[in-house]
Amino acid sequence: MIDWKNRYADNIKDYQGYPLGKTLKYLSDPEIISLAGGLPSPEIFQTSELRAASEKILLNDVDKIMQYSAIPGEQSLFEAVIDFLKRDNIHLEKQNILITTSGQHGLDLAGRAFLDKGDIVLVDRPTFAGALVAFNMEKATFVGVDIEPDGTHVDGIETKIKQLQKNNKTPKFIYVVPDFQNPTGITMSLKKRKQLLKLSYAYDIPIVEDSPYRDLRYYGKDLPSLFSLDQELYNGGGNVIGLYTFSKIFCPGLRVGFNIGHPEVIKKMANIKEGNILNTPKYNQDLCTAYLTQMDFNAHLDKCRAYYKDKLAIFLETMEKYFPKESGVTWTTSEGGLFLWVSVPDHIDTAQLFFEAIKHKVAFVPGEQFYGENPEKNHMRINFSFASKEQLKEAVKRLSACIKSID
Amino acid sequence: MIDWKNRYADNIKDYQGYPLGKTLKYLSDPEIISLAGGLPSPEIFQTSELRAASEKILLNDVDKIMQYSAIPGEQSLFEAVIDFLKRDNIHLEKQNILITTSGQHGLDLAGRAFLDKGDIVLVDRPTFAGALVAFNMEKATFVGVDIEPDGTHVDGIETKIKQLQKNNKTPKFIYVVPDFQNPTGITMSLKKRKQLLKLSYAYDIPIVEDSPYRDLRYYGKDLPSLFSLDQELYNGGGNVIGLYTFSKIFCPGLRVGFNIGHPEVIKKMANIKEGNILNTPKYNQDLCTAYLTQMDFNAHLDKCRAYYKDKLAIFLETMEKYFPKESGVTWTTSEGGLFLWVSVPDHIDTAQLFFEAIKHKVAFVPGEQFYGENPEKNHMRINFSFASKEQLKEAVKRLSACIKSID
Repeated sequence: MIDWKNRYADNIKDYQGYPLGKTLKYLSDPEIISLAGGLPSPEIFQTSELRAASEKILLNDVDKIMQYSAIPGEQSLFEAVIDFLKRDNIHLEKQNILITTSGQHGLDLAGRAFLDKGDIVLVDRPTFAGALVAFNMEKATFVGVDIEPDGTHVDGIETKIKQLQKNNKTPKFIYVVPDFQNPTGITMSLKKRKQLLKLSYAYDIPIVEDSPYRDLRYYGKDLPSLFSLDQELYNGGGNVIGLYTFSKIFCPGLRVGFNIGHPEVIKKMANIKEGNILNTPKYNQDLCTAYLTQMDFNAHLDKCRAYYKDKLAIFLETMEKYFPKESGVTWTTSEGGLFLWVSVPDHIDTAQLFFEAIKHKVAFVPGEQFYGENPEKNHMRINFSFASKEQLKEAVKRLSACIKSID
Repeated sequence: MIDWKNRYADNIKDYQGYPLGKTLKYLSDPEIISLAGGLPSPEIFQTSELRAASEKILLNDVDKIMQYSAIPGEQSLFEAVIDFLKRDNIHLEKQNILITTSGQHGLDLAGRAFLDKGDIVLVDRPTFAGALVAFNMEKATFVGVDIEPDGTHVDGIETKIKQLQKNNKTPKFIYVVPDFQNPTGITMSLKKRKQLLKLSYAYDIPIVEDSPYRDLRYYGKDLPSLFSLDQELYNGGGNVIGLYTFSKIFCPGLRVGFNIGHPEVIKKMANIKEGNILNTPKYNQDLCTAYLTQMDFNAHLDKCRAYYKDKLAIFLETMEKYFPKESGVTWTTSEGGLFLWVSVPDHIDTAQLFFEAIKHKVAFVPGEQFYGENPEKNHMRINFSFASKEQLKEAVKRLSACIKSID
């Protein structure tokens, strides 16, 4: 029989998949309140609208739904996406868009298109674990700079680029989540967005802008995306590749998203999609088209925002009341998104604390999973979108008791 | 602005995607009868059954359908697949199965798991173009041997292995489609199946067995799959990885398939799936579960077999009547599947003939797309499943006229 472990590709041999999955497997006890996942709340799912849309498309189009369909995406969804992005001052044609089978797929397509083993990706510290996982499959090297309260430490990134250049190395791209970053909830200021773009132009380094939470703003006013700022200079795609998903604004279960960018890049990613999965299922795309064109998504987004804003407020309030600030516990606030970042004193390793928390029937994601290199150990990612309001309050109390118990 | 073409990963830089896609784009004229695609016929789609199943699962499970779900697959589909494979004398547990987002996805997961740049894959000449595309994304090297009327030229494969060993090279795996191979329609004999397995054991080289058409047998009796023969020696997965899809037996549009094999390999592929797309949509999986458990798939498969058998007979009969055999035109026959392989005299390049055929309002796939190396130019792949019976007859007449016109 084959000794499989010695047969894997070099890139994949030591790759272990998504660390979050290993965390979630400890959560089978139904009494545990999980603040670990990044799940949107089913309380705001448009279930009756989805059923109605489903019935309609299966009545009209079942033959086409059951057949192979165009690999880059459905014409109707392209049109809906083009309209959707106009609200955000992004003006595209079909050739600038690739329908993906989720945001994770969008990340993987970016990784496969650009990364050879050892290629450098510039990232925030911390940054989205799913991006690290995707780029790890290409054996990328991550060079990171600690994120600041107003977003990416752009000066620090420039210093890193200069250091790399001295060794004749140029990063392949800069990966950022400018709006309500996963895991910290931090949003990049307008000043820094412009500064980051300038850096991209000056050093000729592309930016991959991941925008899953962009429409989930609860406070403050919208800031232009890097993509739209880039478009002011380069109509139809300059230095920025944008990654979008329907997972947080409609639902994750359908697995549909889209990448936007220069036609050359979109074509290459479409070619990779051909060898990877062929088409995204038409049914799933058609439901997303219905979401954008028939389900009054503006009203739905307003509802989502009010719903999550409420949860965020409760969460912050309860943390303020119960968390042992005197022990050095701190946390970020956020104007939107699904996550906050809680820091405990340096001597506490949250990967250990996680198992204590499980005993207290509460869970989070240990922060070390969100670092491309040299992980810090004393942070945790907290999700406030999925648990009910009552559960959120109880979870904070349990977590507070847990931290006090080991301090 | 970024000069994107100079930024791509080395593996992907020269990769152009699926050549078939470039062929299909010439077929927009509705008068063209296409024998090019590999599409199942919508005439046998279970549309009302799908609608009924859809209504039921959206009624009972919409919240779970809209949410993230388990990455390896749904428990209910695992159970249905385990039962489905028992008919075929394959006895598995959940740990032996990974639900994929289609057969193409299964191929890509195999390629990513095992192939480094330059790694050798042993293939038939010709072989399935989709496998070549997937493995090309890892810059595999193909070493092929001409297929024989009873399947893979196993002795020839052994000679290649010995030649490679002299240069200290060991192929990563052998890729075969034993049942009604795409593109030739050829089925591997039982004798050769046993011989190929022996070779795999003797040289310690895994086999990737692709089985999309296995249940579409119209003549003759079922032969045991390589996987089931391997299981006689190694319960739970020995040297063979099996790739399956619902595309040809239910429908391609849902994009669901499954890979089977040793738990170690399945786990590694699941890890890759985590970084690639996360979960396959639960809705799409649930419909496949309904297909296997509620739609009387045995009766449906009988119907499919009768329907395609009829088309194959008509096609063979019309070719016999019209094709200019005196000019040296030959073709394979098949006991099942969706394809036949037509050969024209050496001096005719079917990639050129394709454009003549378009003028005659008929289309096929030029055979050169099905070679991993040193493509032969004088073959074409013909699909007989999609066009209507009347269209099939007319297509053969047109193709015959086309061949005569250039001869």
